[in-house]
Amino acid sequence: MSHTILITGGACSGKSRFAEELALSHGGPLCYLATAQAYDDEMTERIARHRSRRGGVWQTIEEPLLLPQTLARIDGEHRAILVDCVTIWLSNLLLSCDGTQPETEEYVMANLHRLSATLREMTTPVILVTNEVGMGIVPDNPLARLFRDVAGQSNQLLAAVADELHVVISGIPLQLKGRAS
Amino acid sequence: MSHTILITGGACSGKSRFAEELALSHGGPLCYLATAQAYDDEMTERIARHRSRRGGVWQTIEEPLLLPQTLARIDGEHRAILVDCVTIWLSNLLLSCDGTQPETEEYVMANLHRLSATLREMTTPVILVTNEVGMGIVPDNPLARLFRDVAGQSNQLLAAVADELHVVISGIPLQLKGRAS
Amino acid sequence: MSHTILITGGACSGKSRFAEELALSHGGPLCYLATAQAYDDEMTERIARHRSRRGGVWQTIEEPLLLPQTLARIDGEHRAILVDCVTIWLSNLLLSCDGTQPETEEYVMANLHRLSATLREMTTPVILVTNEVGMGIVPDNPLARLFRDVAGQSNQLLAAVADELHVVISGIPLQLKGRAS
Repeated sequence: MSHTILITGGACSGKSRFAEELALSHGGPLCYLATAQAYDDEMTERIARHRSRRGGVWQTIEEPLLLPQTLARIDGEHRAILVDCVTIWLSNLLLSCDGTQPETEEYVMANLHRLSATLREMTTPVILVTNEVGMGIVPDNPLARLFRDVAGQSNQLLAAVADELHVVISGIPLQLKGRAS
Repeated sequence: MSHTILITGGACSGKSRFAEELALSHGGPLCYLATAQAYDDEMTERIARHRSRRGGVWQTIEEPLLLPQTLARIDGEHRAILVDCVTIWLSNLLLSCDGTQPETEEYVMANLHRLSATLREMTTPVILVTNEVGMGIVPDNPLARLFRDVAGQSNQLLAAVADELHVVISGIPLQLKGRAS
Repeated sequence: MSHTILITGGACSGKSRFAEELALSHGGPLCYLATAQAYDDEMTERIARHRSRRGGVWQTIEEPLLLPQTLARIDGEHRAILVDCVTIWLSNLLLSCDGTQPETEEYVMANLHRLSATLREMTTPVILVTNEVGMGIVPDNPLARLFRDVAGQSNQLLAAVADELHVVISGIPLQLKGRAS
């Protein structure tokens, strides 16, 4: 019943644009579920740029933390939901903790399992944008390492539940799972 | 008329070697358009190593900043031109600015659009090497973040104008656009 | 005679899990050749987590430095050998040097060529896990840059000798070399 598409790629690789095209192929109304919060000018500007690219067929909901709960609540109200993006949601969850490592990781993983379970129950198709963050040098800082590990585990977990996985490189998508063949 | 090939990949992934093979398949004379400047011993040594791998069929031109202008000027003089690499050109452009962010980004993007327009007009085939730099942890430093964003946008823009896109991983190329099929 | 499989991917991308599945398809007994040393609690915990996922069919050998020598010594004793991972071995080699750059790089490259030669001679199939570390921003620190270059060259060299190359993204493998077809 549920249909989940996961779209991964590096920073500014064209993931969001490709995700929007996939969502638009479902017709409207569409939901844009934004996880980013504008905490500085750089972010405000980036969010505004993304929003201005999207047209009137989109309802925008901003939810930094309660992603599974929000998805469950709005299920059935749109032709498709685009979550942009999972990585910022994970980062918000990490930053909302006091930083004690074992509990932080446990809390984030519990949220991820809840998201995974919610996705299996959805009737509205969900397109999730995520980021590759684990292909650089190991970061010095322990929080960055924890984030990198959690982001990698999240990508594995969501790709396992997803019907399709696409990686976007230089704006060009490559389908890794769910090919029609 | 024009034929543009974009080759992307991580550091030391075998991009340049693959690009050289593609260029050599055109026969000579060939142009190696180098954007790197030897500002320290590490770089001097790296450039010398790359140069020693190439044979006498190559004319080398070093141009850190005026890439579109140089391409337009030498059009028609070689069987193929290899640009190695776009990422260093972007970095040179960024570093040539005084660092005020909105103007810097605008200046770099204007250069990118000029490159893109030039590539469409070229009669000599152009092979461009670029780098994936957006698959690690978000950098702390704002200039590195700006560079990462600009490099991602550059890759998208050039892949859109290119007839072929290849990503090289562990020395093995994977074609993402323009497959003969 | 020899059969080498190289598996690459980012941090926590599911490389080790995929490598273990490939190894298990050979039947037992299997050798898990671990290159990591538990120098802190984070690492101890990570190693224990990986080990607990593997069952009794595995013999574990820990060898941080003498990888080619160990492979040659145990050749013929198992149905397959899983090396997890090459990147940590390279890091151990680098850290075992006093840090004078040209000699360090020479020493590491000599070890890599020895590994490559050993792999060609093996009768037991060898599955090597490695990491993509060159797709982020250029690191500030010279040792990290050297490591990144060496890791990239290692991936190229091992992929050249390997019969199969797979990249794992979000837990999903993509074969880049040695496809059956």
